[in-house]
Amino acid sequence: MNDASPTAAVLIIGDEILSGRTQDTNLNTLARFLGALGIELLEARTVGDRHEQIVGALNALRAGHDYVFTTGGIGPTHDDITADAVAAAFGVGIAEHPEALAILERRYGAEFNAARRRMARIPAGGSLIANPVTDAPGFHIGNVFVMAGVPKIMTAMLEDVAPRLRTGAVVHTRTVRVTGVGEGSVADILGAAARANREISFGSYPFGHGSVGEIGTNLVVRGRDETAVEAAVEGLLAALATTGIAAARM
Amino acid sequence: MNDASPTAAVLIIGDEILSGRTQDTNLNTLARFLGALGIELLEARTVGDRHEQIVGALNALRAGHDYVFTTGGIGPTHDDITADAVAAAFGVGIAEHPEALAILERRYGAEFNAARRRMARIPAGGSLIANPVTDAPGFHIGNVFVMAGVPKIMTAMLEDVAPRLRTGAVVHTRTVRVTGVGEGSVADILGAAARANREISFGSYPFGHGSVGEIGTNLVVRGRDETAVEAAVEGLLAALATTGIAAARM
Repeated sequence: MNDASPTAAVLIIGDEILSGRTQDTNLNTLARFLGALGIELLEARTVGDRHEQIVGALNALRAGHDYVFTTGGIGPTHDDITADAVAAAFGVGIAEHPEALAILERRYGAEFNAARRRMARIPAGGSLIANPVTDAPGFHIGNVFVMAGVPKIMTAMLEDVAPRLRTGAVVHTRTVRVTGVGEGSVADILGAAARANREISFGSYPFGHGSVGEIGTNLVVRGRDETAVEAAVEGLLAALATTGIAAARM
Repeated sequence: MNDASPTAAVLIIGDEILSGRTQDTNLNTLARFLGALGIELLEARTVGDRHEQIVGALNALRAGHDYVFTTGGIGPTHDDITADAVAAAFGVGIAEHPEALAILERRYGAEFNAARRRMARIPAGGSLIANPVTDAPGFHIGNVFVMAGVPKIMTAMLEDVAPRLRTGAVVHTRTVRVTGVGEGSVADILGAAARANREISFGSYPFGHGSVGEIGTNLVVRGRDETAVEAAVEGLLAALATTGIAAARM
């Protein structure tokens, strides 16, 4: 909607997502986080714990967006291969990062073993991302932010990521709830509004499909100019009022 | 794990996912559906309601996998552009499908308008996918299955999709729950098991990070040969028993 706002992509890494064992929630968390900063999330990919797949996806995404955020694969076990894949994607080496090593030694004490030591390996040139939950850090290299897959840890890492990001104009969102008719009954009014306001995005999200109870659709109006968004909402409500269709701001 | 099993990719289409308004659940539903059929889901992408993005992602995915499943963007409003994008990706025309038109006329009767008529537009060569919830069909063209974004409708459409798919050997999954230690304490045992059993996949999914209450990790063992999976689980349990770490099948 605004070419000056930074763009972003998300890369979710983990067999557990593609096997269906785990319902991903990190994409939604990141989408809300980026939206609040005015960074436009344009694309997301999910790949398994496969080196070539991670390298290929990461190189495609980092070339096409201002920022890339990855989640998953930075733990101590053999299937945690993200750090090596990121190093390969950037064509740099990987070695134990002294600060990461110190953090992990402090955390684990007598239980600091070779497996846990793997979590100190950071691609050359990477800077650490603090993990206030379990200490083992993520890292930031170039325009790529590499974070844990566990949602609680990923979310906590965003505190240390946010100050490093260039922000954009925040997108303002309003919802008009239409009830009693399906979205096909308001599609003409919505389409006309979209044609008349190219800077504003209009979405329609129906509810109550084919089931007992209320049917309707939520019309979502989004844009970076809050006054224009408000005007678009008023215009929609006025157009709907002429048809007798029930509609109200949410 | 088995080159003879069909592979698949998922393409989630919709601004509402990338804005964070909506938490996607279709990928997880599809992952479980495909897993039960022995079809290996290797990749997923999420794109917005943008023509070029949908065309590009679809062409990349359909060239690389036996099957592609898309969700979203087939409703009656101006932002529903999936059918046109699929036609463009395949380089074919798009026109009203007589059977789809008949279904929609029956459904809507006097309320059948131009917007709803858009839902009858199907790329040339496509065959319909039945929608038992709201009738408006999805479609299948080449190796691509195009379905609704509303989870209830998408899930219902899978009934009509399943018989059209070539199935593979089902992946058997077992979980060993380790408690009282973090995953770094069992990483060596897990890594040794993975090196000794290349046909089996071993994952580790920790829980209870840094919070009050039990900590531990779930070791997930997966493979197409059920006997080999069972043997791997027994091997893991035996190796863990020698260390005194608490572990049990789930």
